[in-house]
Amino acid sequence: MTAATPSHGRISIGQHLINRLHEAGLRRLYGVPGDFNLEFLELLVKDGRISWIGCCNEMNAAYAADGDARLSGFGAVLTTYGVGDLSALQAVAGARAECVPVLSLAGLPPLNAVDNRFPLHHTLLNGDYEDVRAAYRPYTASQGRVEAHNAAEVIDRAITDVFQQKVPAYLQLPCDLCDVTIPTPRTPLALDLPESDPGTLAMVTSALAGKISQARQGIVLVDALVARYGLEEQVMDFITRTGLPYALLPTSRTVLERNHPLYRGIYNGRASVPAAPGFDLDSYVAGADCVVGVGTRLFEFSTGFFSAAIQSGAWCNVEPYGLRHGFATPALGKGKVVTGARMGDILRATAQALPAPKAASGPAPKRTLPPLATDKAAWNGAVFWNRIAHFLRPEDGIFTDMGTCSANLAAVDLPEGARFNIQTIWAAIGYATPAVMGQQMASLGLGEKRRHVLFTGEGAFQLTAQEISTMMRHHLNPVVFVINNRGYTVERCILGEHAPFNDVAPWRYAALPKALGEEGRSQSFEVRDQQELEVALAAAENPSKLTLIEVHLEPLDAPEGLWKMGKAIADMDYSRSV
Amino acid sequence: MTAATPSHGRISIGQHLINRLHEAGLRRLYGVPGDFNLEFLELLVKDGRISWIGCCNEMNAAYAADGDARLSGFGAVLTTYGVGDLSALQAVAGARAECVPVLSLAGLPPLNAVDNRFPLHHTLLNGDYEDVRAAYRPYTASQGRVEAHNAAEVIDRAITDVFQQKVPAYLQLPCDLCDVTIPTPRTPLALDLPESDPGTLAMVTSALAGKISQARQGIVLVDALVARYGLEEQVMDFITRTGLPYALLPTSRTVLERNHPLYRGIYNGRASVPAAPGFDLDSYVAGADCVVGVGTRLFEFSTGFFSAAIQSGAWCNVEPYGLRHGFATPALGKGKVVTGARMGDILRATAQALPAPKAASGPAPKRTLPPLATDKAAWNGAVFWNRIAHFLRPEDGIFTDMGTCSANLAAVDLPEGARFNIQTIWAAIGYATPAVMGQQMASLGLGEKRRHVLFTGEGAFQLTAQEISTMMRHHLNPVVFVINNRGYTVERCILGEHAPFNDVAPWRYAALPKALGEEGRSQSFEVRDQQELEVALAAAENPSKLTLIEVHLEPLDAPEGLWKMGKAIADMDYSRSV
Repeated sequence: MTAATPSHGRISIGQHLINRLHEAGLRRLYGVPGDFNLEFLELLVKDGRISWIGCCNEMNAAYAADGDARLSGFGAVLTTYGVGDLSALQAVAGARAECVPVLSLAGLPPLNAVDNRFPLHHTLLNGDYEDVRAAYRPYTASQGRVEAHNAAEVIDRAITDVFQQKVPAYLQLPCDLCDVTIPTPRTPLALDLPESDPGTLAMVTSALAGKISQARQGIVLVDALVARYGLEEQVMDFITRTGLPYALLPTSRTVLERNHPLYRGIYNGRASVPAAPGFDLDSYVAGADCVVGVGTRLFEFSTGFFSAAIQSGAWCNVEPYGLRHGFATPALGKGKVVTGARMGDILRATAQALPAPKAASGPAPKRTLPPLATDKAAWNGAVFWNRIAHFLRPEDGIFTDMGTCSANLAAVDLPEGARFNIQTIWAAIGYATPAVMGQQMASLGLGEKRRHVLFTGEGAFQLTAQEISTMMRHHLNPVVFVINNRGYTVERCILGEHAPFNDVAPWRYAALPKALGEEGRSQSFEVRDQQELEVALAAAENPSKLTLIEVHLEPLDAPEGLWKMGKAIADMDYSRSV
Repeated sequence: MTAATPSHGRISIGQHLINRLHEAGLRRLYGVPGDFNLEFLELLVKDGRISWIGCCNEMNAAYAADGDARLSGFGAVLTTYGVGDLSALQAVAGARAECVPVLSLAGLPPLNAVDNRFPLHHTLLNGDYEDVRAAYRPYTASQGRVEAHNAAEVIDRAITDVFQQKVPAYLQLPCDLCDVTIPTPRTPLALDLPESDPGTLAMVTSALAGKISQARQGIVLVDALVARYGLEEQVMDFITRTGLPYALLPTSRTVLERNHPLYRGIYNGRASVPAAPGFDLDSYVAGADCVVGVGTRLFEFSTGFFSAAIQSGAWCNVEPYGLRHGFATPALGKGKVVTGARMGDILRATAQALPAPKAASGPAPKRTLPPLATDKAAWNGAVFWNRIAHFLRPEDGIFTDMGTCSANLAAVDLPEGARFNIQTIWAAIGYATPAVMGQQMASLGLGEKRRHVLFTGEGAFQLTAQEISTMMRHHLNPVVFVINNRGYTVERCILGEHAPFNDVAPWRYAALPKALGEEGRSQSFEVRDQQELEVALAAAENPSKLTLIEVHLEPLDAPEGLWKMGKAIADMDYSRSV
């Protein structure tokens, strides 16, 4: 006689999925309804704990989930099969590039149709129901399909992948399984990476502590993964314990406090922005014999276009689940990795293995603000961005797209406490508009009352502009600066200064909110000079509604650094000199 | 001694690509500039034979290329790597599902970076430059990468794949190869399918002719592939020679003339729409012992939700390069195929193998128009759509999305000569807006002066609405009906009649063109009753500018057929009865 199976309660697969999403912290689900996800949506609304945020399209929804996840720690997008999940794919790939924990959840046609390879709409009519999974494979940690026999395991795997690796996962829920029941799982989600292997931890700790204690000239480079894993405090403990100075990166500008004696600035190879005048951060890092990355991912826009001269022997990088030594490629690519220990454990154990911290010497760098233009100064980008440096406040949630906005903001010493968000790696223009929406929703969900500020070029804005309607639908009040410089100025800096292909359709940006939202949900301004700017900024201090400020600038008005970068990009992209 | 190599001129790879695209008939290239495609764009503009149509985003650009290709026979979209080509992928997949010849051309990072697996922006920083090709694999005939040694072959292969198979291909042009020269290719493009194998052709011709000559009750079902291959005349010859009656499908409503004695209506299983009152097209097809498909692709929306009772022994289908017999699956899926002969050859040879044509008996069916509502009739969808049946003209280019618009238009007997375009298979809402733009551009390119008319639900419109700005930028004058029924009415017909997730953000659609285009490029109307409709339709007769007509209807105002279809979809999707 076999032992009696313990009796379990039963739960529907749809309800279990909702429970698990909620257990993992999900409070908002972005997406677009479709026939293969309606029953799940009905259940979600009935359950009531996770808010449905219907978006204008699926790419925008995935961007919003990304912006949400960067603050809340978990974002999700729900789409229908084929037309929906593939529309979201590019934005999901962006989350993969930027290590943002986003679940892409898709309603699949019923399993009977899949099993019989039925020719259904939203498919290629070739009976292939593996195609979307194949397309998602390069961009997600896993591509699970819920079936009746594996529902609990597949759901947990997808969520765990997102949390452990801080990258997207893809999950298909066949529409006919939503109300099929399974034995109620009893174990809670296990979202963390496995506990460190003691031997591995001891080995990497010893190596890292040894390297640091022997360092003649050392520095810590802290990147965005630290924030993804919520390890900001441990990293600051590690820094104060080691006494090493630290720098942030263009991908992590506000991840740690900057009002600290050990803070040295934003590292970016020759394009570094030191925290104190006169300090040469690039040369310091190049001359260091101990450069400790923490979750650092080097690429052209964090190495001053590969100008970073970090010595291979000096480099090690604390990764989410191991330690990496040295570089293997000229572009500072992969080196030797030892895996099996958590980033937090490595940082903690290494700090403990070192002698007691020395008190950090010297004053904390002061935030420097650029001088404002005189009333009589000719209107241009420098005047505008200098004024913006003064406009930004400690509690601001700032979003921008790659382009002239990011290039100008690179020179702005951001206020302590502000959150700066950008897709520096994936660099998809149009990202920031839906993303700031998602992050403001997450912020409100945390009970915050932060102002959210978006800086976007009008070329970027055109990709995803319709999502401001969803902001207004939900009474959001971001300040949206649309820099209208009559085209893709960043591309003009690379090639085609006056080329017609760098022009965009002329919109009346200031008129758009009124067309996309109800009366009273927006205010708009057009700015062509300092006086108009002051009027707009006064209204943007504490706005109660969406505030769109169209800022007119000339097509070739870009900072010197962007022109240099454009030249470097053109050299790499179009010339083949040996 | 080997024979002397003949001396060749040399040509840059970029110029050769432009030459080949032009040789294949391309006159417009849609897309978005990015750093990896700027040099090619510069060359394209300098060459001047292919117009660059910059779009608001890449998905919209690919939709526009699809709409163009449905008329011109060849569409193409140009994007940059990762952020661009992946944004276009969903629309390209739609072209694959619908057999539309579209080339997706992407600027790749320079080959040196690819070769060294450089961590660049627009990538995952993992050194993988195969990821986008992997994502495109399920949706394209080939995924070529131009290299210096294979440029001519890879370019020709991509274009040939598009033409031979009438599906998309994906092609990567590394940005550093644009001005590298290759020996000038001398042979013209060979775009047709290979000539038929004589034995195969004889065999399938004999089988098909035998089947037709022995038929007691026969019919021909003609689908969209006939138009893709430009075989409309051959099919009409085949029909008149065989004397068989013919029907079109929801995917091919205007592919052949309907003013013909042998025309029997739109076949769609139990949801068929016969050309003449009293004729039961569904029963006729079910009782037929010879049903000849021509390029026919059966699925739920061309079989009345799989209610089509075609006998497996009666069925054969002339495919682009062969003949198929019988069905293999309950959903009318694949049967036995013999390949090696072109569709046109099979049709011609079979017609010739049959005795001389009998004169078609009986009158041609007359176009039937529904009765107009009286002045006093309450305003609703029936009143609107009946009036639209009278509004449509023989030269109209009509686009619509799947939903209430397509369901209502299914009952409209379209005027002879009109072109009807819809994504019945892929069914991505939002498709029709950018697609009508592409097709109107193609139409103008052919010297036509057709009116173009778009019918879209407002939920669908929100996905891609910004592209009306590109229409206005190019002085296009489509008539855009936006049916504002306050949400996704088609989803309400399936599940969630009153559910909030089927609501959409409230826009002021009529105000949108003014925000997105220059003064004088648009006119807008709001319609809430018959009188307002007449004012709008009068202005839409021969408009000189983009004409947006927002039509207010109630959320549950859908034709009976759509409610039935919604019930059938819900039954298939959410119930699992045995």
